[in-house]
Amino acid sequence: MIPIISIVGKSDSGKTTLIEKLLPELTRRGYRIATVKHDVHGFEVDREGKDSWRHKQAGAHTVVIASPNKVALIRDVEKDLSLEEIREKFIRDVDLIISEGYKKDVQPKIEIFRKEKHKELLCTKEDNLIAIVSDKKFDVGLPCFDLEAMEGLADFVEKQLLASRSPLEISLQVDGKPISLTPFVKDFLKKTIQGMLSALKGCETSRRIEIRIESEEG
Amino acid sequence: MIPIISIVGKSDSGKTTLIEKLLPELTRRGYRIATVKHDVHGFEVDREGKDSWRHKQAGAHTVVIASPNKVALIRDVEKDLSLEEIREKFIRDVDLIISEGYKKDVQPKIEIFRKEKHKELLCTKEDNLIAIVSDKKFDVGLPCFDLEAMEGLADFVEKQLLASRSPLEISLQVDGKPISLTPFVKDFLKKTIQGMLSALKGCETSRRIEIRIESEEG
Repeated sequence: MIPIISIVGKSDSGKTTLIEKLLPELTRRGYRIATVKHDVHGFEVDREGKDSWRHKQAGAHTVVIASPNKVALIRDVEKDLSLEEIREKFIRDVDLIISEGYKKDVQPKIEIFRKEKHKELLCTKEDNLIAIVSDKKFDVGLPCFDLEAMEGLADFVEKQLLASRSPLEISLQVDGKPISLTPFVKDFLKKTIQGMLSALKGCETSRRIEIRIESEEG
Repeated sequence: MIPIISIVGKSDSGKTTLIEKLLPELTRRGYRIATVKHDVHGFEVDREGKDSWRHKQAGAHTVVIASPNKVALIRDVEKDLSLEEIREKFIRDVDLIISEGYKKDVQPKIEIFRKEKHKELLCTKEDNLIAIVSDKKFDVGLPCFDLEAMEGLADFVEKQLLASRSPLEISLQVDGKPISLTPFVKDFLKKTIQGMLSALKGCETSRRIEIRIESEEG
């Protein structure tokens, strides 16, 4: 499971700037990062008149634009997705997801605070706040990093989120709904499937297994 | 597996316009469609200065912008992906994928041809051409639809691609690589997994099963 960390903070506290500074520090260390930005006002990424824009206007649910080095996708969703749902549906091939905002989501958070802008923090430990980045010291029992100390912050993120990942996770979706599994069933499914696959050529050293079974009648 | 059909044709033959006319006819029949557009020249979907654009500039591999009714994603890829790879990595929750272009891909194709624009067809049966949409009759042993006859074309697409889907498909990816399975192994894995899951609550009437096992050490 790809770990998620949310950069939160009140309006104009500098969330995007913090992400801009943290990203190069993490990519320099060899991590691939995905970012997620919440846009409640709706957005227009595609451009009027372009072929892909015309496809979408004509009723396409999903539009993909593919080039040799970049792929873009725009699709309809029925509701505001949680970070977990976004991870599940859209994000592959990265080591860490950094979201900007999503203060109401359950994922761990780092708050950015600048004393010339606000008086109080936005989140508390109850919101799963795990660190603060600020030019002011807070005595709330959480690590506090300087606004410019990206190395220390990257060390912290690495230690908290990238080193402590659980060694093996199994998830099951049936008809698009996640099914919760007891530890016994998890262990049983995991070991049975790994056992079966270990006999197949190309599956000996599997670190990531994905199986889809689709019945498309009706 | 979501079926794929490519709308091909020489430059300025009217591919986008055909897709614009076919889409409403198919969505009216209750199908959800994804479109794929190939853009060899690279593209710029996001806008300079936007937060998500700043994330990408700062080195994010993937950027997601999420709103309550739409999600956009922009990510790096290492090469030109085939339609099959695009389906696998990006497309969920639709009944059919229509690509514009991709004449070199192996997927079935419908060619649009207008006699005032060109003299010869772009594709042949060897390219997996399965139909022609044109204001000229071609005697090449393929169904030919009028430029405005979207109902007939939608009937054809429905019959060829949406009705004839195999009742049950299993696919396996290990470390991101698709593993090809013999019919015996397919059947064995499918039945074993379906059998195991049938005992779990919530999995009784499964039409689509997705299992991920991820080892994230190292």
